[in-house]
Amino acid sequence: DGTQAPPPVVHYQMTNLTASADPVGNRETVLILTPMTRFYQGYWDNLLKLSYPHELISLGFITPKTREGNAATAALQEQINKVQSGSKGKRFASVTILRQDTEIPLQSQDEAERHKMENQKMRRAAMSKARNSLLFTTLGPTTSWVLWLDADIVETPASLIQDLAAHDKPVIVPNCFQRYYNDEKKAMDVRPYDFNSWIDSQTAQILAAKMDNDDILLEGYRELPTYRTLMAYMADSNQDLHAEVQLDGVGGTALLVKADVHRDGAMFPPFSFYHLIETEGFAKMASRLGWKSWGLPNYFVYHFNE
Amino acid sequence: DGTQAPPPVVHYQMTNLTASADPVGNRETVLILTPMTRFYQGYWDNLLKLSYPHELISLGFITPKTREGNAATAALQEQINKVQSGSKGKRFASVTILRQDTEIPLQSQDEAERHKMENQKMRRAAMSKARNSLLFTTLGPTTSWVLWLDADIVETPASLIQDLAAHDKPVIVPNCFQRYYNDEKKAMDVRPYDFNSWIDSQTAQILAAKMDNDDILLEGYRELPTYRTLMAYMADSNQDLHAEVQLDGVGGTALLVKADVHRDGAMFPPFSFYHLIETEGFAKMASRLGWKSWGLPNYFVYHFNE
Ligand SMILES: Nc1nc2c(ncn2[C@@H]2O[C@H](COP(=O)(O)OP(=O)(O)O)[C@@H](O)[C@H]2O)c(=O)[nH]1
Ligand SMILES: Nc1nc2c(ncn2[C@@H]2O[C@H](COP(=O)(O)OP(=O)(O)O)[C@@H](O)[C@H]2O)c(=O)[nH]1
Ligand SMILES: [Mn+2]
Ligand SMILES: [Mn+2]
Repeated sequence: DGTQAPPPVVHYQMTNLTASADPVGNRETVLILTPMTRFYQGYWDNLLKLSYPHELISLGFITPKTREGNAATAALQEQINKVQSGSKGKRFASVTILRQDTEIPLQSQDEAERHKMENQKMRRAAMSKARNSLLFTTLGPTTSWVLWLDADIVETPASLIQDLAAHDKPVIVPNCFQRYYNDEKKAMDVRPYDFNSWIDSQTAQILAAKMDNDDILLEGYRELPTYRTLMAYMADSNQDLHAEVQLDGVGGTALLVKADVHRDGAMFPPFSFYHLIETEGFAKMASRLGWKSWGLPNYFVYHFNE
Repeated sequence: DGTQAPPPVVHYQMTNLTASADPVGNRETVLILTPMTRFYQGYWDNLLKLSYPHELISLGFITPKTREGNAATAALQEQINKVQSGSKGKRFASVTILRQDTEIPLQSQDEAERHKMENQKMRRAAMSKARNSLLFTTLGPTTSWVLWLDADIVETPASLIQDLAAHDKPVIVPNCFQRYYNDEKKAMDVRPYDFNSWIDSQTAQILAAKMDNDDILLEGYRELPTYRTLMAYMADSNQDLHAEVQLDGVGGTALLVKADVHRDGAMFPPFSFYHLIETEGFAKMASRLGWKSWGLPNYFVYHFNE
C-alpha cells in the first residue's frame, strides 16, 4: 500500500569495527555468552558489578530443555526483567535467551559423575554444540568482542573486560580458581579449578599421534598424564597481575575473544579436532586460522564450589 | 529517567523452530547468503523471481574492500533500494551488506588465472573466511534455512527453495551447469560447471592419506585424478528431476542447508580439514556432526559464462 516504510537495508563497514586495547574509549560492543544449566545468584551479582558500560554489552544465554534448564530459565528471566526495567545505567543493550533442543547426553550433573573420563567426550561434545548454537545465533555485525563466561563463575574483578582487552590479544584467558575451606589450615583457601589452559608437550603430541582419529586427549586425568604445562600451576599471586603466557589449549569458564576470530570460522569442535575438543579444540582452530591464544596466570576468576 | 522503554529481552524456543519439507506452509524463514566480488544483473533478476514468499527471506551479502568490490556494492545497493521501496509483495524481510576486511590474496579474477591449481588453496581459504564472516554475522535465532547462492548464478527454477526443501535433507545441492555456444553444433548447449559435488573414492582416500597435514585435494584437475564420482557427470535431463544421491563433498554455487547444521558448528574450513577446504570441507564437517549431504543430479542451476 506504500504507506509502510520499507524494511531496513543495513550496510556495515566491517573495516570500521575495532577490537582494541581501549574498548571503552572506542565504544566497542561486547557480547557476553553463557551456556547455563543452573542459575547461580553469585554469577548474576558478579555480572551486574562488571564496570564495562552496560549499554555496550549484549547478553546471550542458552539453557537446555530439561527440568533443571527450565528452572534456570525462569530464575534468569526474573533477574533480567528486574535489571532491564531498573536504573538506565545498569541496563544491558539486549538480552537473548535460547532454549537448546539438542539431546542432553547425561542426566546427572553432580561433580563426581561429570568428571568421569569416559563421560567427558560426550559431555563436552554436547557443550560444544550449545556454545556453537549460542555463538552462531547471537553474534552480530557490530560485535567487537565475545566474552565467554560460565554460569558458575561467581567472582571476577569488576574490570574483567577492560583488563583482558588491554592485552590486545585475539584470545585471552584468566586463571580459573576455586575458593574452598582448607581443613588443615582451618581457613578459607584457593585451589586451581580449570585445567584446560595449557602449553603443549611432546608427550601429548606423541600420545595424540598414536590415537585413533576420533579419540581425544583430556587434561587433568591421572590415567593419562600429558606433561603439558598447565597454567593452573603457573599462578603466583605475588607476581605481576598482567604477566602473559602463550597457550595451545584454553579453558572457557572465562575467555575473551576478538569477534573476528569467530567470524573467520573459529568455533568449538564437538568432534575430535587434532585430538582436542570444545574450548581446547577452539584454541587449536584459532591457531590454524592464524590467531594466537594467551593466558594470564596471575589474574584470577573463581568457580563456584558445590 | 524511566520514561524510555527498557531494551527488549528476546526469548527464543529453538525447539519451536522447524526446517521442514513444507517451509511455506510452516512459514519458515530463509537466509540467502551471497559472497560477491561482482554484481551480475542476471543473478539479481533471478533472485527477484524466486517464488518463495519474500517476506520470509532475509538477504546477506559480503563484498571485498577492493575497487571491484566497491563497484559491486554500489550496484547492489541501488537494486536493493529499488526493490525494498517497491511493491510490498516483492520486498525482502531484511538485507545486510558486509564489507569484508580480510586480505584479498589474488588481484586478477579472470577465469584462467582463478583456476590455476596452485592459487586455488589461497583463493578458497579467502572465500571460506568470507563465507564464515557472512554466516556468523547474519544467522539469527529465527532462521530455519540458509541458501548459499553465488553471485554468478544467473538461472534457477523460480521454485528453487521449495523444491530443494521438499527433500527434507540437512544439506542439499542442485547440479550447477553452464550454458555456452557449442561451435560444432552451431547451437546453444549446456556443460557441467561445478565439480565440487562428489562421492568419495578409494583413490582419493589413498592420495589424502599420503599428504601432509596442510595439503588439500582439489577436484577437477588432470594433474591429480581422484576417481571420485562427480555429480556433474551423473546428470540426465531425461530422468527424474528429483533423483537424490548422497554426497561426500558439495559445491556452494547453490546450496540449501538447515540452519541447525550451521548452529551445531558446521562452517567452511579455511584450512585443510581432512585434506578438504571450503564447501567440500563443510560437507565433511557436517558429516562429522552427524548430518548427511545430498545432491540432485538432474536438477539444474546455471552459472554465468564469462
Ligand atoms: N546449555 C547448556 N549448558 C551447559 C550444558 N552442559 C554444561 N553447560 C554449562 O556450560 C558451562 C560449563 O559446564 P560445567 O558443568 O560447569 O563444566 P565444568 O565446570 O568444567 O565441570 C556451565 O556454564 C554450565 O552451566 C548443556 O548441555 N547445555
Ligand atoms: N566477498 C568475497 N566474495 C568472493 C571472494 N572470492 C570469490 N567471491 C565470491 O564467491 C563466489 C564464488 O567465487 P567464484 O570466483 O565465482 O568461484 P568459481 O565460480 O568457483 O570459480 C562468487 O559469488 C564470488 O563473487 C572474496 O574474496 N570475497
Ligand atoms: Mn563449571
Ligand atoms: Mn562462480
